[in-house]
Amino acid sequence: MNPKPNQWQPSGVVTLTTDFGTTDPYVGVMKGVLHTDFSAVRCVDLTHAVDAQDVRTAAWYLAHSWRYFPPGTVHVAVVDPGVGSTRSILVALQGGHAFLAPDNGLLGPILTEGAEVFELDVERFARCRRSNTFHGRDIFAPAAAAIAGGLDPRDAGAPAVPAPPITFPAPVRSSAEAMELEVLLVDRFGNLVTNYVAAETEASLAGWSVEIAGQRVEPCATYADATPGELLALVDSYGHLEIAVRDGDAASTLGLGRGAGLTLRRVGQ
Amino acid sequence: MNPKPNQWQPSGVVTLTTDFGTTDPYVGVMKGVLHTDFSAVRCVDLTHAVDAQDVRTAAWYLAHSWRYFPPGTVHVAVVDPGVGSTRSILVALQGGHAFLAPDNGLLGPILTEGAEVFELDVERFARCRRSNTFHGRDIFAPAAAAIAGGLDPRDAGAPAVPAPPITFPAPVRSSAEAMELEVLLVDRFGNLVTNYVAAETEASLAGWSVEIAGQRVEPCATYADATPGELLALVDSYGHLEIAVRDGDAASTLGLGRGAGLTLRRVGQ
Amino acid sequence: MNPKPNQWQPSGVVTLTTDFGTTDPYVGVMKGVLHTDFSAVRCVDLTHAVDAQDVRTAAWYLAHSWRYFPPGTVHVAVVDPGVGSTRSILVALQGGHAFLAPDNGLLGPILTEGAEVFELDVERFARCRRSNTFHGRDIFAPAAAAIAGGLDPRDAGAPAVPAPPITFPAPVRSSAEAMELEVLLVDRFGNLVTNYVAAETEASLAGWSVEIAGQRVEPCATYADATPGELLALVDSYGHLEIAVRDGDAASTLGLGRGAGLTLRRVGQ
Repeated sequence: MNPKPNQWQPSGVVTLTTDFGTTDPYVGVMKGVLHTDFSAVRCVDLTHAVDAQDVRTAAWYLAHSWRYFPPGTVHVAVVDPGVGSTRSILVALQGGHAFLAPDNGLLGPILTEGAEVFELDVERFARCRRSNTFHGRDIFAPAAAAIAGGLDPRDAGAPAVPAPPITFPAPVRSSAEAMELEVLLVDRFGNLVTNYVAAETEASLAGWSVEIAGQRVEPCATYADATPGELLALVDSYGHLEIAVRDGDAASTLGLGRGAGLTLRRVGQ
Repeated sequence: MNPKPNQWQPSGVVTLTTDFGTTDPYVGVMKGVLHTDFSAVRCVDLTHAVDAQDVRTAAWYLAHSWRYFPPGTVHVAVVDPGVGSTRSILVALQGGHAFLAPDNGLLGPILTEGAEVFELDVERFARCRRSNTFHGRDIFAPAAAAIAGGLDPRDAGAPAVPAPPITFPAPVRSSAEAMELEVLLVDRFGNLVTNYVAAETEASLAGWSVEIAGQRVEPCATYADATPGELLALVDSYGHLEIAVRDGDAASTLGLGRGAGLTLRRVGQ
Repeated sequence: MNPKPNQWQPSGVVTLTTDFGTTDPYVGVMKGVLHTDFSAVRCVDLTHAVDAQDVRTAAWYLAHSWRYFPPGTVHVAVVDPGVGSTRSILVALQGGHAFLAPDNGLLGPILTEGAEVFELDVERFARCRRSNTFHGRDIFAPAAAAIAGGLDPRDAGAPAVPAPPITFPAPVRSSAEAMELEVLLVDRFGNLVTNYVAAETEASLAGWSVEIAGQRVEPCATYADATPGELLALVDSYGHLEIAVRDGDAASTLGLGRGAGLTLRRVGQ
């Protein structure tokens, strides 16, 4: 018998994205269950420092990270304000990767064309004594172990229609020459990641400038094109327009953070 | 020849619980020694964020986590105010798992009935040039590698009588209808974990209410049973009574932390 | 054909040292690329909490850690203020280990006698679509995966002369009886690590005392030789003279940090 087309080929890698932090042993315990149920698992932390219950940032991180893992990876994201309620758990397939997350929109940016989405059969995977407060340990980890160990995600539940997806605000065209943008994320370096997705062809941002906090900021190809301490705009590693300070911290320099506005404007015309 | 009964069957997994933090390379270096001495080791971090020398919290975390790992796991806990002194290092077997920790009570909650306890033969395992300040690298890691690689923990030292165990305060019955409890731990979400172990049969806490900081708090089965911002009491994933705020932080809402008192009271009678 | 002398024998272990933090998914994504390009990789975090662009501390951590890993380990260090500029990337061999880092001096303390240094052939290893801001993901990870998977580091680029090395200040002899030292590093416990390398023969520091912040501090063999709260001087696990407080935090007790001065003085003569 031939394999099914698009047969699930697990890589053995499981990524974890949570808001659990790393002080409590919650993440370690999830890995314990993963190793118990599938001894060859290889766990990779994406992040555990999402703000408590910040589903939106978890969605961003996961959506911008999963493609860098091998096909056959199981991505588990547990930011779950509805734990213990009747919310479903989704298992999804997209681009040869599997995903497990609460049905709260977190997987929205991934569930684009071609995705297959299922409601996890919780009773099949839950540990015998399960808590009402830690489904990461009691449901997500056993289910992820099963899928990483070979179970086709399509056999882990029934087809489902997911909850409305987390979305990110789009740039707003304010004139023929200008767009209003928004800061979505501040990274560890104080870089301000905006909602403007730079097409590959405009990676240099040539012909544009940025106004933010009353200052005009010029585009650069990279940090090193600015002088130390200078503000610059560039296309970052997410493929988004980013405001940075060379060898510095744009967020603290400008006193701005998530939600701050800026204007992208055509110049020299 | 038949294997001994209860023969040591290593899983290859080593968990690490320390107060080393993750800024200094101390934890990474321990893993380097583990990989050097046993190339197939799989390390899992339980936590490295125990407050410096807080043996008690390390004891709590480990005691509530080890059962989620596969049998044959080696659990290494290094919170060790006595490093370099004459304190012993214990190696123990319990429920098919192995444990390594300073003899300072940390393993106390695990060394219940059925445990076998040995004093590690330090000279046998210590690295040639060993420091007086970092036994995690110089003694614990080589010993853990040997045990994870197959050495029976019973052959790693001589039988020992451990130091007095770390204990946690028990609830105090203050009347026929009430018990005085204490907050043992605040987790990442600001949940207040108390010393009341809820028996399986009373997981719903039906018939009880809690008084804390002058407020009466009603039991719920899960966070989602309260309204956002509301205080609730529930049985948490440790199996303990916990005070939480739905979608919020009970510790900061109440201004309470470890050591705070609360009353559990029978109602409706 | 016989193997070359000193043939590269990879252990499969890759260590990571960065200033990326662990809130953003940058480190996780690097590991994704490593697992994609070399499925048997075993990643170990040395630290990701180096201050942004603090090349010097990264150099210290790596130089004092790599020997604890198995020969054949690939050590990747990305603290890279010059990312996207024309700075080179170095690949080096030393003592049977491989190293990858920007050519900014970070590898300096490792590139002592016997090291072989090459400029990485970036075009050969870079991912198809590479950013100007995240070479950890787009160049270092694919190159590290290739070397961990068997590529001889000597075949990864052309011989190179590295940039001037990061150096650490040496003790200054101020009299026949005294040396002026400097605090290089404060660790998680508030211990002050100085630039005095204690030779093996003087591990006890017998015959010396320390003056710091107007106080005289006596040498001890280990923390447990002092009374709780007492200042002490000892040879730490780096092999350096360290100022500590028994069961306490020397940095906060003394109000001192990196760069602080102290005097090492012969006594009893």
